[in-house]
Amino acid sequence: METTSAIIIIGNEILSGKTQDKNVSFIAKRLAAIGISLTEVRIIPDIEDVIIDTVNILRKKNTFVFTTGGIGPTHDDITAKSIAKAINTELCLNKEAHKQISDFYKSIGEELNIYRERMAMIPKGAELIDNDLTKAPGFRIENVFVLAGVPKILENMFSYVEQKLPKSDPICTKILDVSIGESKIAGILEDIQEKFKDIDIGSYPYETDFGYNTEIVFKGKSKLSIEEAYIQVRNLVHKKGFDTK
Amino acid sequence: METTSAIIIIGNEILSGKTQDKNVSFIAKRLAAIGISLTEVRIIPDIEDVIIDTVNILRKKNTFVFTTGGIGPTHDDITAKSIAKAINTELCLNKEAHKQISDFYKSIGEELNIYRERMAMIPKGAELIDNDLTKAPGFRIENVFVLAGVPKILENMFSYVEQKLPKSDPICTKILDVSIGESKIAGILEDIQEKFKDIDIGSYPYETDFGYNTEIVFKGKSKLSIEEAYIQVRNLVHKKGFDTK
Repeated sequence: METTSAIIIIGNEILSGKTQDKNVSFIAKRLAAIGISLTEVRIIPDIEDVIIDTVNILRKKNTFVFTTGGIGPTHDDITAKSIAKAINTELCLNKEAHKQISDFYKSIGEELNIYRERMAMIPKGAELIDNDLTKAPGFRIENVFVLAGVPKILENMFSYVEQKLPKSDPICTKILDVSIGESKIAGILEDIQEKFKDIDIGSYPYETDFGYNTEIVFKGKSKLSIEEAYIQVRNLVHKKGFDTK
Repeated sequence: METTSAIIIIGNEILSGKTQDKNVSFIAKRLAAIGISLTEVRIIPDIEDVIIDTVNILRKKNTFVFTTGGIGPTHDDITAKSIAKAINTELCLNKEAHKQISDFYKSIGEELNIYRERMAMIPKGAELIDNDLTKAPGFRIENVFVLAGVPKILENMFSYVEQKLPKSDPICTKILDVSIGESKIAGILEDIQEKFKDIDIGSYPYETDFGYNTEIVFKGKSKLSIEEAYIQVRNLVHKKGFDTK
């Protein structure tokens, strides 16, 4: 059976438009490389009930769920507490996390305060996910991976997450760039998609100085189908007199 | 009662990590400016059943729903058809849309083909949303606004959408930038949040060449509370000996 996943971006700053999310595209690419498909992303506010409901809906529908954001030391960081409630467990002081955090602050000559200690409050039964940068760990509980929101920290944590995930054939992508708007080649794409049902052919127009070009994306697990479909589309596009690159 | 909204980003290209979404942050800011709160964003694939379910869930929970993507001329553009099914209506050739599209292609000396004509297939009962750039319109049906995925076209369409939306006091934001990591000022933020319950105080660390700084975001409809809370946090931060800007 296919391994599937969903991402939950927990953060008022993304919903307000203040911050541009960068984590979805990072995680999506890394999951595709190990054959895990991403079925859905939800961006939700820092509200406990919303986090609980969203985690519980998505973890039933998917093999894995990844959350980002809300595991820092401030009052608006409520992810760990909400996940504990979603999983029906308690939030406890995790000794290993506490040691990592207190060693870190000692190493930079600073005191541990109650807010920094809060980052060691982890749902009971969770497995820690290391953070080489600021040491406050993420965690995994059941099929939910709870990660930082700051992109650099998330990326560091994700290298540890990857070690725990099952690997299968990557979801491959090949792109054909056509120097014309998509409405002139829509018939070609429809015919070739009909022939290669084991891959997805997507058509994405983008603006240039001279009008619109189109990126045609061939995506799927069958490299053979991707190659074949790519060549057939390219040949038909050339036959119509349009350039590709 | 508060006016709420949700965004549905329809697009395999975002879920695969190939394309970085830019529409969420654009729409979010414009909604905040007219006092409409954004409760949730979902990024979903180009799959009919998923689009239908997502639209129906979110349009019941929110005053308005905005979808982006999937209204072009190619085989993977299935948004209009899916919305028609969600709303329990039919997809029909919209005469006004057809005229706009055929006039546009005539004006650039090109033929209308069946794929271009498809963009005039609009759910029965929908109101068109103009597109000054490529003319293929978006539409509104009931409380759902269906918009293009290409950011420039979406932005153009949104200027027409705004005219149809109710306006109330903007959701304001004020940012205080503190030259220190958030764990040193977490207590201040917690105390002040406790005092000003009508606004949200968010804390967002970001990396600099010398460690981490923190952006403190004061957000809400009460300008007075935002100003007061901002001044109190700033004074307490200065008292601790940290800089702000």
